[in-house]
Amino acid sequence: MGRWKPGAGDRLREAALSLYLERGFEQTMVADIAERAGVTARTFFRYFADKREVLFDGSSALEEKSLAALEELPTTTSALDAVAAVLETVARTVGGDRELARKRQAVIMANADLRERELIKLTSLSAALADRLRQRGIGDIEAGLAAETGIAVFRVAFSRWVTATEDHDLQDVIRETLDRLRALAAGG
Amino acid sequence: MGRWKPGAGDRLREAALSLYLERGFEQTMVADIAERAGVTARTFFRYFADKREVLFDGSSALEEKSLAALEELPTTTSALDAVAAVLETVARTVGGDRELARKRQAVIMANADLRERELIKLTSLSAALADRLRQRGIGDIEAGLAAETGIAVFRVAFSRWVTATEDHDLQDVIRETLDRLRALAAGG
Repeated sequence: MGRWKPGAGDRLREAALSLYLERGFEQTMVADIAERAGVTARTFFRYFADKREVLFDGSSALEEKSLAALEELPTTTSALDAVAAVLETVARTVGGDRELARKRQAVIMANADLRERELIKLTSLSAALADRLRQRGIGDIEAGLAAETGIAVFRVAFSRWVTATEDHDLQDVIRETLDRLRALAAGG
Repeated sequence: MGRWKPGAGDRLREAALSLYLERGFEQTMVADIAERAGVTARTFFRYFADKREVLFDGSSALEEKSLAALEELPTTTSALDAVAAVLETVARTVGGDRELARKRQAVIMANADLRERELIKLTSLSAALADRLRQRGIGDIEAGLAAETGIAVFRVAFSRWVTATEDHDLQDVIRETLDRLRALAAGG
């Protein structure tokens, strides 16, 4: 038995991100990823439907967790506080490994199709959030605005977090960005 | 000479939107649009590069006008006030014909590719706005937040405007939506 190795899924993800950065997403084949991770292509397909899924397989879990976080809040929570609570959950889910997040972001930013997919993912999360806020009795317009604003705060905060030279906590960056939004809206 | 007819460009746009709604965007051919507008396919291509351009040909003009509106503001204007001024310009540009806007929106909402294109267009406008705000001396984070928030307000307001049963002015709907955002941010 050799030394301990991380699971095949994690190794495949690492190998894929490195190859996407080295050669470009389009130029990387599933066979290359499998080879670098030391597994067969068949093993790759046990973990991911295709090479794009390596980047986006966390999306539906993230949406589920976000909506579950909403359910736990008192029904009296205001729209923006509810969105802030959801963002805390998002930060805990995607904020654990900045190096991984930085690599993923670099791959996505380098490819128009991937940027579109990321944008669509966030818009879908926004629509789902707005729906749940409406179900919680928040007015139609406030629900839409709070959800869209939450996504705006996330996009700005996430970009700050991955590009910062120092290592900050994503939750702190999100909180600070939300505070800045409140100040902006109050002062404008 | 017959009765007055609108220009071929306007007739082509009308014909295209009607056909996209009747048959679906995918199922409509340029030849069908030209035929309904009473012109040749060659004339169609003098006005539009392809059938998608009928829906999006105003985008670059809208972006130019939006950025030009920013230039006219005093340099002391706050980030959110600057975005509010840009939204006034956007409202004047796209708010003239609600029936046309309503048809265009229905066509876009019915097709995933078109929804993506619309999303990308708005994201590109947001990035351009943020850049110009930074050039005006507004801090990096505030610029990003103000631009993203502006787009959020526009998306919510535009959707309210086209789906409303009564005929409102787009500028009024945008102003009211921005006020709601301020209240939301202050009260949350």
